Amino acid sequence: MYNMDKLYEAVEEKGHVCIGLDTAADYIPAAELKKASSAAEAVLAFNTALVNATFDLCACYKVQIAYYEEMGLAGLKTYSETLRRIREKNCLVIADIKRGDIADTASRYARAHFEGDFEADFVTLSPYMGMDSIEPWIEFAQKKGKGAFVLMRTSNRGMKDFEYLEIKNTSKKLYDAVGDRMQEMAASHEGKYGYGAFGVVVGCTEREEAAAIREQRNNLFFLIPGYGAQGGAADDAALLLRESNGGVVNASRSILKAWSKEAPADADNDFAAEAARKAAVEMRDAIRICAKKGSL
Amino acid sequence: MYNMDKLYEAVEEKGHVCIGLDTAADYIPAAELKKASSAAEAVLAFNTALVNATFDLCACYKVQIAYYEEMGLAGLKTYSETLRRIREKNCLVIADIKRGDIADTASRYARAHFEGDFEADFVTLSPYMGMDSIEPWIEFAQKKGKGAFVLMRTSNRGMKDFEYLEIKNTSKKLYDAVGDRMQEMAASHEGKYGYGAFGVVVGCTEREEAAAIREQRNNLFFLIPGYGAQGGAADDAALLLRESNGGVVNASRSILKAWSKEAPADADNDFAAEAARKAAVEMRDAIRICAKKGSL
Repeated sequence: MYNMDKLYEAVEEKGHVCIGLDTAADYIPAAELKKASSAAEAVLAFNTALVNATFDLCACYKVQIAYYEEMGLAGLKTYSETLRRIREKNCLVIADIKRGDIADTASRYARAHFEGDFEADFVTLSPYMGMDSIEPWIEFAQKKGKGAFVLMRTSNRGMKDFEYLEIKNTSKKLYDAVGDRMQEMAASHEGKYGYGAFGVVVGCTEREEAAAIREQRNNLFFLIPGYGAQGGAADDAALLLRESNGGVVNASRSILKAWSKEAPADADNDFAAEAARKAAVEMRDAIRICAKKGSL
Repeated sequence: MYNMDKLYEAVEEKGHVCIGLDTAADYIPAAELKKASSAAEAVLAFNTALVNATFDLCACYKVQIAYYEEMGLAGLKTYSETLRRIREKNCLVIADIKRGDIADTASRYARAHFEGDFEADFVTLSPYMGMDSIEPWIEFAQKKGKGAFVLMRTSNRGMKDFEYLEIKNTSKKLYDAVGDRMQEMAASHEGKYGYGAFGVVVGCTEREEAAAIREQRNNLFFLIPGYGAQGGAADDAALLLRESNGGVVNASRSILKAWSKEAPADADNDFAAEAARKAAVEMRDAIRICAKKGSL
């Protein structure tokens, strides 16, 4: 069974929220930072509390490796432990690593992130170098059910620089070309709910074309960034869903830092985890309502 | 002083070779593998011997992080130590990490790879998400002289999938659009030899357009992959140079595995390092000769 099928089922059961554990030390309550012997240790304790408080109401987690690499070797130990704790809860985790490199190197990256210390259920990939930087990863879909989300149309300001470039003699943009190739690939690795083992990243900050993209890419599961702090709302995200499924919506800061809005001076990780749970429930319900409206 | 200026000077003094430490355990002599307590330890010993034997005749090293990530946390310790050993020799090192992510995340990646455990002199970056995934890195050019090479036209089969897509209403391909933006950026961070603090990756497997690319991108220093095992020859690489400078040519396997051609059964790291030195000298001289011919 592909992890993408498991993700579909997790969305059915628990809603569309993907909690992004882009945990910076300054997101953590001061009392906890003081208690920990290092920033890396503080981040692990915070992530653990957060996962324990939210695993039953999010479809999956996404861990942005940059936040851990920034802390060096100790940070990558925390990254490894964070993945392990999520997987111990039988939850799915996306390693947000945006790797993209040629064949031999891609195989090594695949082993790095689908096995061993950094084993995740999904990765994110960057398509610039072409399909031979994506294909070596698919072996792990067949062997171990692993999945990936390839950058298609992201949610940052700079996406217009290259992703939106129009291609000669077509009505397509670069991101459409990536979508076309990913749809072809999905057709030969389709799971039981009609989605390919590998999906794409489609941000919810742009409403234009959202419905068209969703309709056109009917066999691609979406990882949807841009919600909350980046400006996307529940009804923007819902435009990218299909029959109330077919996508997970990532939120990071709005959940991780929910505690800081009305925090007592001695706020701790339990306080932060409770606030995160509340924020995740609100987000889940808001998206569910919009998704149901959209399907009428 | 920008590292790109230092790299220019290293090319003047030591030639164009960039040794790629994409060290897989199976590139290492059996006797050494047996002696080491882990693959990660064996790779570090091999890299150390190689660096000690070649630092005076290559412009720089490039370390492909995938080969180290594959070995998990222990591998990343070896990665960190390998960078340190190169820098202790006053040699420049390119972290081949091909990162590319939005603003906040890019800043964290920059701190991860320009400071601390994983500090390198240069990184490689992927441009798919746009210039806001490149710009946060430039702060480190101003602050600490750091540099980067952004993927433009690579050397793999799949480069034709997206990099070669032609853009509507222009005579440009996607890789030209990336080159244009990088030239603009270079214009505002130009070093004393006329090259910007950030350069681009241009492979030498395609002769077509090589001379045109070199002429057009006159303020961009090139990191040139594709030599040797990937099919590029000295005269292909020389087409991408300018007045015998302006680029470094990467070779990995042809240098790392040079020892295995005529190896006695008890070959060790010293044997491998000597063979690597010989292969690097041959490559250096072959490119120098072609570069001088080209300049006539």
